[in-house]
Amino acid sequence: MTIDLNCDLGESYGVYTLGMDQEVLPLVSSANIACGGHAGDAAVMAHTVALAKQYGTAVGAHPGFLDKEGFGRRHIAMKEEEIYQLCLYQIGALHAFCVAEGVKMQHVKPHGALYNAALRDSDVAKGVVRAVKDFNKDLLLFAPVHTELHAQGEREGLQVVKEIFADRTYAAEGTLTPRTEKKAFIDQPEKAADQVLEVLQKGTVRAVDGTVVAMEADTVCVHGDNEQAVLFIQHLKKQLEHHGTRVQAAGDRI
Amino acid sequence: MTIDLNCDLGESYGVYTLGMDQEVLPLVSSANIACGGHAGDAAVMAHTVALAKQYGTAVGAHPGFLDKEGFGRRHIAMKEEEIYQLCLYQIGALHAFCVAEGVKMQHVKPHGALYNAALRDSDVAKGVVRAVKDFNKDLLLFAPVHTELHAQGEREGLQVVKEIFADRTYAAEGTLTPRTEKKAFIDQPEKAADQVLEVLQKGTVRAVDGTVVAMEADTVCVHGDNEQAVLFIQHLKKQLEHHGTRVQAAGDRI
Amino acid sequence: MTIDLNCDLGESYGVYTLGMDQEVLPLVSSANIACGGHAGDAAVMAHTVALAKQYGTAVGAHPGFLDKEGFGRRHIAMKEEEIYQLCLYQIGALHAFCVAEGVKMQHVKPHGALYNAALRDSDVAKGVVRAVKDFNKDLLLFAPVHTELHAQGEREGLQVVKEIFADRTYAAEGTLTPRTEKKAFIDQPEKAADQVLEVLQKGTVRAVDGTVVAMEADTVCVHGDNEQAVLFIQHLKKQLEHHGTRVQAAGDRI
Amino acid sequence: MTIDLNCDLGESYGVYTLGMDQEVLPLVSSANIACGGHAGDAAVMAHTVALAKQYGTAVGAHPGFLDKEGFGRRHIAMKEEEIYQLCLYQIGALHAFCVAEGVKMQHVKPHGALYNAALRDSDVAKGVVRAVKDFNKDLLLFAPVHTELHAQGEREGLQVVKEIFADRTYAAEGTLTPRTEKKAFIDQPEKAADQVLEVLQKGTVRAVDGTVVAMEADTVCVHGDNEQAVLFIQHLKKQLEHHGTRVQAAGDRI
Repeated sequence: MTIDLNCDLGESYGVYTLGMDQEVLPLVSSANIACGGHAGDAAVMAHTVALAKQYGTAVGAHPGFLDKEGFGRRHIAMKEEEIYQLCLYQIGALHAFCVAEGVKMQHVKPHGALYNAALRDSDVAKGVVRAVKDFNKDLLLFAPVHTELHAQGEREGLQVVKEIFADRTYAAEGTLTPRTEKKAFIDQPEKAADQVLEVLQKGTVRAVDGTVVAMEADTVCVHGDNEQAVLFIQHLKKQLEHHGTRVQAAGDRI
Repeated sequence: MTIDLNCDLGESYGVYTLGMDQEVLPLVSSANIACGGHAGDAAVMAHTVALAKQYGTAVGAHPGFLDKEGFGRRHIAMKEEEIYQLCLYQIGALHAFCVAEGVKMQHVKPHGALYNAALRDSDVAKGVVRAVKDFNKDLLLFAPVHTELHAQGEREGLQVVKEIFADRTYAAEGTLTPRTEKKAFIDQPEKAADQVLEVLQKGTVRAVDGTVVAMEADTVCVHGDNEQAVLFIQHLKKQLEHHGTRVQAAGDRI
Repeated sequence: MTIDLNCDLGESYGVYTLGMDQEVLPLVSSANIACGGHAGDAAVMAHTVALAKQYGTAVGAHPGFLDKEGFGRRHIAMKEEEIYQLCLYQIGALHAFCVAEGVKMQHVKPHGALYNAALRDSDVAKGVVRAVKDFNKDLLLFAPVHTELHAQGEREGLQVVKEIFADRTYAAEGTLTPRTEKKAFIDQPEKAADQVLEVLQKGTVRAVDGTVVAMEADTVCVHGDNEQAVLFIQHLKKQLEHHGTRVQAAGDRI
Repeated sequence: MTIDLNCDLGESYGVYTLGMDQEVLPLVSSANIACGGHAGDAAVMAHTVALAKQYGTAVGAHPGFLDKEGFGRRHIAMKEEEIYQLCLYQIGALHAFCVAEGVKMQHVKPHGALYNAALRDSDVAKGVVRAVKDFNKDLLLFAPVHTELHAQGEREGLQVVKEIFADRTYAAEGTLTPRTEKKAFIDQPEKAADQVLEVLQKGTVRAVDGTVVAMEADTVCVHGDNEQAVLFIQHLKKQLEHHGTRVQAAGDRI
């Protein structure tokens, strides 16, 4: 059995450094690279794509709202057409760096508030999905099951890579436990691995209230913001491999 | 005989309208479309590419400095690598809208202060040329003869489309008369047509001091900022056609 | 009797021109000047403050979301503290140009989506009101009655200037008829003047469904986007003066 | 004897952290706070002014080019009037946070490429000086002797605080040794203190070629980017105090 590990990368900006890209890139199989919207700039994109190529990590576009000050975490009320144009612009920009490096773009995963909106709001989801499809219908779309983004992606014939989160718990509805709640986070890599393995082997996840919920996973989202996060990825990866699950880019598995 | 007419287009931004794109697009054969650097945004790019497709006008990327406030007319001191990344980003962004519309990108022409710098400064020229080449070596590069941009483009094996300006006079060195000088501008379409025809037929241009200078032209730059400018293009086009010179996109001539 | 006429001004940006500031400034008594957030830049602010001084028009800060691409019309989800900082920054920036011109800043009126949010959302209203108060508690705050912004302004001891809209109709609740509805707009200056005079003389407004609603007005918002709008202001002003109501800046009336 | 120590602070941006403001603010007497041009944003400005107040550090505006991507280190070709407006805008923005905190703004010091240009180019220097003067002629201007910025400041009647650099050596002309040269930097706090003390006691500095050059100092620029830099400031301060020179804000000394 194999599973994809994805991480947001290339989120530095000018002199500002964010994330431990150099440490994380060798560990994960898919890199969601910021496209200059919520983070990143042309130089950071160039370096990150080159680094991903060096480590053999698959590259994906990580479009976000045009709001570096808020790091794309503040929702901006935009219509479907605006979302479509926003994503198309950023996907195209990252694509240019892939072309220059001779790297194939594997996937698209929206960032932050744009991602959250696309999960719930069908108009936002449609805008994202149309942008992916119109640019290249062979691009993979990352989205959790039970979401608008997943539904719209499937409807439009995209290959949707089902995503779960390594360090987050789930509610009985199959959605993430809100960050504000106590039990929202999983801080032990063993427990995270157990959750991932349960999804892979049984197709279920145990919600915080004990309910067993149907869940599917092709890729697991991990974070790489600090040393602790990097250790978490290392441990998680070891646990997964220990249980016979190899880490492999989503595009190589399909 | 044929000649290409090119014009800067898609320079509106959000609610701000600039230029008479709707009127100019049917008249010219090549559109230099702003890429969100000095002007334009994702929505404007989408609309302009769609409009260019509708009128059969060839599409080119028109990258500029990241300075909407200064409309890309203020030089920003950037290194070759930064120029390369800046151009690659913007070319890629516009390319996405071409892909979505099923339109082929024909050419690249830098804007304003970036263009001026690329004409004189070999580092800036190299940055621009490398970006074009690394993205797609079949893209045409617009550049006047006797310039660094032209020289670097040829050196790197790009197809360089030689550009002259319809409404500008030349100095004895084959460079444009500075805008600050009295005789810098040609405001009669007849005279503009005569200058273009002399270049096409004899390979020369008559400089303001009377000197006959060697000059070549594959494309003529016109402006479309106001009604007067649109009339100028119409008259110029009529004059050229009257003298047996048909307007045709550079990419269709090669 | 007197009434203030206010208009959004200084919304040009770089080479982009918006609005007919030169024509509108002599007609209105209060100018809401963009502060570089949703529109405007340092040069536009300098020119607009100088022009307002020349015509004796009172100057106010018109802070908006940091979204020139969306002209501040797209809501951005920001916390009270962020709204406070956003407004403080922009008020301070405009204040500098007032100081340089020797002009007193009279008022603050938020723009577009920020204004709309401040009318309904108490957190946004608090952020705006705190910024005004902390910068200068003598600044007037423009806000319609029956709104959160008005309520928070009064609670914090600010002088709130009650605003109505010249070209808009009201619903039975005392709120503006949504722009999407048919009867949302008043396009005849006579009817606009009648509505203003009814508010001034009787303290009521006739809603679209015929209901008579309590309403108060110290200032009337007009628009200056195009020639038609300028004619509307001229006619409205003439009507008001014909009925014995003189146009005077809110700060001169208090 | 006393001397001012100044440091660039408040250069974080959104989620991006830069500098060790918390550690540096208690050590220096004057804080040059970024104003949202080259770095900083409304939230960072609010926090930094509050922190400066807490530690009793004097506050100054640190305007820079509108280029966060380049951190204000890339020269942007702007005319005197544009420089004036740029500075006025940023000084006003920071002033608002000073007002809100009840802190007096002490000084202005331009940042990076703007500072470098103002030292050499009289137009840029005039733009900066006029902005300071028009906003508040009692604001101190930080500038090294033998520079255009110093000369223009004096000509316009501003109080110019003469600045030297703690970690930089000087050429025989009294200008800083270019960063590209080997002996450009002083990395021992003892040597830095010796240089400062020589300037204070003898009015001279020993250039890298041994020449003794006339030099004056009211304030010493230090850096606070990393732990090493903070240690350097601590050692420098100890050395200065050991030699009877107390650290005191420029505004308190005049």
